Order: sequence, then structure tokens, then C-alpha cells
Amino acid sequence: MDNCSQTLATPPTTTPRGKISIFDTTRRQNMSAIRRLNLISQHISPFSASSSSTTSSSTHSKMPVSTQAAHPLTLIPGPVEFTDEVLQAMATPSQSHVSPQFVSVFGDALALLRQLFMNTDKSAQAFAIAGAGTLGWDFVASNLIEPGEDALVLHTGYFADSFADCIDTYGGVPTQLKAPIGDIVPLDQIEAALKSKFYKVITITHVDTSTGVLSDIKTIAALVRKVSPNTLIIVDGVCSVGVEEIRFDEWDLDFVLTAPQKAIGVPAGLSIFIASGRALDVFKSRKAKPGSYYASLSKWLPVMQNYEAKKASYFSTPPVQNIHALLASLKQILAIPLEDRFAAHEKMSTHVKETIESYGLKQVAVRPGYQAHGMTAVYVPEGVTLPDFLPKVAKRNIVLAGGLHKDIATKYFRIGHMGVSAIGEDREDFTLALNAIKDSLKECGYTF
Amino acid sequence: MDNCSQTLATPPTTTPRGKISIFDTTRRQNMSAIRRLNLISQHISPFSASSSSTTSSSTHSKMPVSTQAAHPLTLIPGPVEFTDEVLQAMATPSQSHVSPQFVSVFGDALALLRQLFMNTDKSAQAFAIAGAGTLGWDFVASNLIEPGEDALVLHTGYFADSFADCIDTYGGVPTQLKAPIGDIVPLDQIEAALKSKFYKVITITHVDTSTGVLSDIKTIAALVRKVSPNTLIIVDGVCSVGVEEIRFDEWDLDFVLTAPQKAIGVPAGLSIFIASGRALDVFKSRKAKPGSYYASLSKWLPVMQNYEAKKASYFSTPPVQNIHALLASLKQILAIPLEDRFAAHEKMSTHVKETIESYGLKQVAVRPGYQAHGMTAVYVPEGVTLPDFLPKVAKRNIVLAGGLHKDIATKYFRIGHMGVSAIGEDREDFTLALNAIKDSLKECGYTF
Repeated sequence: MDNCSQTLATPPTTTPRGKISIFDTTRRQNMSAIRRLNLISQHISPFSASSSSTTSSSTHSKMPVSTQAAHPLTLIPGPVEFTDEVLQAMATPSQSHVSPQFVSVFGDALALLRQLFMNTDKSAQAFAIAGAGTLGWDFVASNLIEPGEDALVLHTGYFADSFADCIDTYGGVPTQLKAPIGDIVPLDQIEAALKSKFYKVITITHVDTSTGVLSDIKTIAALVRKVSPNTLIIVDGVCSVGVEEIRFDEWDLDFVLTAPQKAIGVPAGLSIFIASGRALDVFKSRKAKPGSYYASLSKWLPVMQNYEAKKASYFSTPPVQNIHALLASLKQILAIPLEDRFAAHEKMSTHVKETIESYGLKQVAVRPGYQAHGMTAVYVPEGVTLPDFLPKVAKRNIVLAGGLHKDIATKYFRIGHMGVSAIGEDREDFTLALNAIKDSLKECGYTF
Repeated sequence: MDNCSQTLATPPTTTPRGKISIFDTTRRQNMSAIRRLNLISQHISPFSASSSSTTSSSTHSKMPVSTQAAHPLTLIPGPVEFTDEVLQAMATPSQSHVSPQFVSVFGDALALLRQLFMNTDKSAQAFAIAGAGTLGWDFVASNLIEPGEDALVLHTGYFADSFADCIDTYGGVPTQLKAPIGDIVPLDQIEAALKSKFYKVITITHVDTSTGVLSDIKTIAALVRKVSPNTLIIVDGVCSVGVEEIRFDEWDLDFVLTAPQKAIGVPAGLSIFIASGRALDVFKSRKAKPGSYYASLSKWLPVMQNYEAKKASYFSTPPVQNIHALLASLKQILAIPLEDRFAAHEKMSTHVKETIESYGLKQVAVRPGYQAHGMTAVYVPEGVTLPDFLPKVAKRNIVLAGGLHKDIATKYFRIGHMGVSAIGEDREDFTLALNAIKDSLKECGYTF
């Protein structure tokens, strides 16, 4: 659920070995190159889908051995680099979607999703459905909002416009509160809007992937409960779930939607979300029938409840391999406390942001404390253009993303630092990436 | 997009080796058991995602070597068994969804989809979108039918009821022509209905997975063009595309939707369809806005056109790994003429049906010539119950599906014979499956 349509990645067809020379100028860089070969041109090891159930090795072992073929490092705000166990789970041999084996895997994945959302209240339900993050908007707009009802959409970038478009498609009436590019919507504006009329839902993009702006979900949710307690709190967590703190029960949220290919570290192909008991009650009492068939909560709620109870159920065939991969990744993620995972991402985010700023570059997200921890959006310096810069980075086997926000798309690039690339032990991804950015800027004629 | 919720597969946790004894009664069975070990307890070979682009080896080599872990044979009407190359493609390392590498893979997959549908008319467009076969119904109902418009739904089993439900969700008015269980809708009834009023679309389930009834798309399409030339011809090809003959251009069809986990031989997780120039024109001239956001043709048409032209484009992040797997499978499928593929499936289908009937069992699909070639629905004999029979088959490492049509669900089971299990060289899948069925019936006390 991210564009990156400006990406100009044209990695070489040669193996990384062919690129060593660019690292040979100093001993440190030489070591870096060697570690790099361990990273992205690794030994081939026996492959068995049964390893899909193993716990994190490549994120915690001292000497990760990968089954992955050499490939450029994809360091965009999703899809991210995946662990070997997750990719091996994607290759799980065929299973009936109603076999006891798969029912158990799906049930376990749904139970672990609750942990990821810090949810224990069983009146809520987690969902994992074949689709994309975008489909989560359809679930909100076609089930929780009835035609003619008002939705307050907080705009911190590109994705609020799309969410509003989706709400309008199903007959809801979106009202956007737009922040200046790179900034947040002030709390007093939100409070005034909530007092002006009743909004059935408020939608908040936790991290807008087009700007890297981080919204303060906890504070906004508390404000909503105080000023308009019956307004459903909807969080677009596509670039935040798994990297930013989200306490679903404690913050009294109603619906958090996300996608697997960001901080959850699973290939794209799923719509993942959790709905509160309050949201499900609002849905059950709606007067109009749901506006969507495939995105109907009435079709999917019993299916998810059954699978979590380890009972086979059916509405539409689930993506068996993607669900195996989801379980494999959730086991790795939850092998350490979530607080430690958030802290590790924050540490890497600070390192990336400080290094970028030490190069004299500026972030799109202007307000300290409101900057995403899983990505950084950076303006290219005066005199450097994306079509010149990004291919030079790609030549160094690092894939970054171009701009996305239409008003500034040609003026900035984006770095994703989520998952194994950001917090995996013995990973050199960002030593390589930050050096590649520095060297490419030099090659573009930029002087530090 | 198949239920099989009656599946009672409980394969042993021991490896297939532990099961040899059941095959030791005759030399033939012993040989069968040995070949079987070659099939489902195979050597582990080096794994590299690069092999996702290789052409069919396991379906054409004399001695297939698999990277797949030992597992029960899934012989249901989808998901089917997958080739090694397809599973390896599912484990492709991360790639940006707008990288030149992935854009090329997606573009090639869309071009090969045209060949699968026997389409050369460029006014049509093929689509592959993260989702499920079910989502194809939403694309039809929310884009090609406007609120209040009539849809004629031919009912040959469970899935017509669901398609009608989907059409109703978006405001269309479905009228069902229902055939008796196991039979087809007579042409004269279809003609009378088409003459009674104008239907915006007619929907035909090519193979209803709940009954195994095969509809004669070619003849029905010709009738529609003669009687009601402006009615859009919609084919639900979920259990037919890749196994049954479909000539999209020659038969003048307007929309064929399918899913990957059946005869296309790719894990579930995609909604695949092709829309004719006529269908796209009807969509472009609709007065009401599309009823769905995620399933909007206006969002996806330019994206598919761009990817097929090898240009990056974005609406929602595509499932990179599933698309790699789709390309790998399409290359294998199209390595031989489609006519040969259809003939090979028909040969296996005849073998399965004749063997089943030689056991004294009866098919649900009663009319010769109107029986699916990728699956067989079979009534259990008098005195045998599914909860007794299916686990006995599963003990023999063969996973079959239970009944699905609600009126007869407890009275029949279903066998899927699509893809590599059915037509792969040196595969013993159906020697094993038919023996397992025979031995399990005996164990249930059935006398031949």
C-alpha cells in the first residue's frame, strides 16, 4: 500500500561480487564488503517448508545462513527484506485450506495478531484476508459507516485522500482536516471539528508513507473519547503496525488496519486488521446492508472466529502460503518483547535520521517527535535530481523509493528501515545504505 | 473459492516411510509405494529463487527431483499440488513492486494470461490482483451492473447462489435459472428468459465445484449473441481455466474470472480475470460510480495496462511473490499446446470416473458430456459415511474433499484432478488415490 512509483532502481545483473571494488578503498569498507557478501550473496542451504515453523534464526543468530539468492537490498517503506523463515513458509507445499494442519496454523496466526496489537479483550477480533492494505479501507467504509454518515479524516499525506475517496465510494461523507506537508493536524482543530457535529468515525493515518509523519494516536484517541465518545477510532497502521507502539485495548481503539509487507515482514498479499467489540456492535446494528460483498464483515467474522477456535470454516479460500508466512513472522517478532522491538527500531531510525542530517539533508517530516521510526522521507539537496541520484544508489545494490506526495514528488526520496534490515543482528544493511547514499550524492556533485 | 469444509483429513505425523506396510501386499503395490516415496518423500535440492524463471521440469523430466518436504497429496478441487518451480517462486526474495525487475515479471505474467484465455484482441485486458476468486464477483457486480439492472444467473450448484448474493449486494437484480442437482439448465429455458426481458449480464459457472457439473459455454454464448447480443457474457471459470477449453475471443465472451489455486497451479491469493473491450466500454459508459473501491476497474485498468507495457504503476501494492509464482506456472502450462493440456486432463478425468464407477459408485454430475474434467463429485455408497470414509483415505496420505452442496453435503465427496498431479509425467498420484479410495471403502465394509 505504498507507491514508490518514482523508484528508479536498476540494480546490476552481475552478482554483488562484481561490485566489491567500490568497497575496496579502506579496510573498514573492505570488511563491510565481506560482511555484505555474507548478507546478500549467501550460502545455499537445504530447503524444507517444515522450517516455516522455526523461530527467528536470521534475526538472532550470530552467523545467519540464508537460502536467499543474491539480490539488491530493498530498503523502501515496503515491501521490506524478509527473513529466510518467512520466505520458506511462502513455499509451504500444498495444504487443504480446511485441513487440521492449516486450520491450526491460521488459528495460531490470528491469536498472535492479537498480541501484535496488544489486545486481550476477546470482544475484539483479528482478521487476515487475501488482499492488500487498501482493502482494509473498504472494510471500514462498507461496514462501519452507513450512507450519509460523516467521517472525519485527518490528513497528514497522500493516503488520507485515498481513504476519503474510499469512504465516498460507499456513500459516507468524508471531511478532511489537512495539515501542511510534513506536519500534523493540531489537536484543537480536531477537538473543534468533533464538537461541530457527530462523526461516525475518525480516521488517523498513524504513519503516512508519503511524508513519514507520525501521528500521536494515544493522545488523539483520548481526545475523541472525551469529546465524542461514540465516534469509532480508525487507525491506518499500514506503515506502523510492528514498528510503532499501538496499544489497542489500553488506548481504546476501534479498528486498526495494516498490510504485511511493512513492519510485519511478510510479502504483500494480505489485508490485516483488528476490530473492537464496539466496532463489531456498531456493524451488527447497522440499518443498511454492508456495501461490499468480498469486504463484508458479516461474511468474514464467523470465519475468523472459527479458525481462531481451530474449526474449519469457509467464505472464500484463504491464501494458505501467505498465512504460513504470517505465522512464521509473528513468531519471530514476538520472540522478544514488543517494547524491545519498538526501541530497536527507534534506535535505527535515530541513526538514519542523524546520519542523513549530518550529510546536510532535510526531512519532509518537520516536527521532532512526529517522525516515523520505520521510514525517513528526505529532500534531495539543491542541484541533485532523483533521476540522477536514485540509479546511482541502485548501482550500489540499494533500492530506495522516490517521492509520492504529488505536491513534492520530484523533490524527495524515501528510506524504509523496518524489520530484519533495521534490527536483525549482524546485518549491515544500513551501513551499506547510508554509505551508498553518501557516495551517490558525491557522484552527483554534491559537496558535504 | 471452494469449501471442502467437510474435509476430515488427518494425515499421520510419521513420514510416508512409516506407511509402506500398507502397500506391501503385492509387487505392484510395492513398486507403487517405492515410486510414491520418490514423489512425496523426495531429495532436498539446493534452493534458489532464481529458478522461478525455469520452465517445467517436474512436469516433463523423467525423474523429477523435488525441494518439497514430504506431505500428504492434496487432491481436492483446489488448492491443488504445486510444482517445485511455483513454490520456489513464492519464496522470491524481496523486490520493490515498482522495480524494473518486478515490472517485467508482472508484465510477462499478464501477457501469458492472455494466451491462457486464448485472447489476442488487445481491446481486452487481463488482470491479476491480490485477493481471491470470490473478489472476481465483486468486480463484475460493482462495475458491469448498475443498481436496478437485471442479471440472469445460471445455477448448476452452490456458487450461483453466492454470485447472485454478490450481485444483490451492489444493487443488481439477479434472476436464477436453477437446474436439478447434478444437471444443467436447458438451452430453451435460457432462450426464453433472454427473450422475456433485457438482462445486462448473464453469469455461467463453467464448472460448479460443488457438483462437478460442466456447462457448455460455447453453445450458451452463441445463443446469447443471437437472442440478446448486448448482454454481457460472464463466465465463472474458477474450477475451469487451465483445464477446460475456453476461447475468449472466438466465443465472444466478455468476462472470465478465476482463481490461481485450481488448474492454474498457483497458491491461493489472487483474483485473476479478463475483460473484453465490450465489457470495458460498458463500464466506461456507466452512469452510477463503481460500487466498490478496492474492486474498481477504474483504479485497476490503468495499472494493468501499464504493467503489461512494462511501466511501473500504482493503486495498491501487488503481491510480488504470488505474481512471480503465477509467471512460473504460466510458463510451465504454456510450454505445451493448450489443446494437449486439455486432452491430458480429459484422459485422466475419464480414468478417474471409469475407475470410480467400476467400484460401483455414482457421480453427482449425471449427464454425460456435462461432467468436469478437473474434478469428480462422487456419492458415497449405501452404508458408508464421510466421517468414516475420509479419515481412512487421509490415513493413506491422500486428502480428498467432502461435500459442499447444502442439499447433499453429507452424501458425497470430491476429487480434484488438475495440474501436476493429474498430468505431470512420472506422477503416481492417482494410482495412489484410487487405491486409497478402494482400500478405504473396503475398510468401511463396502463390498465390490
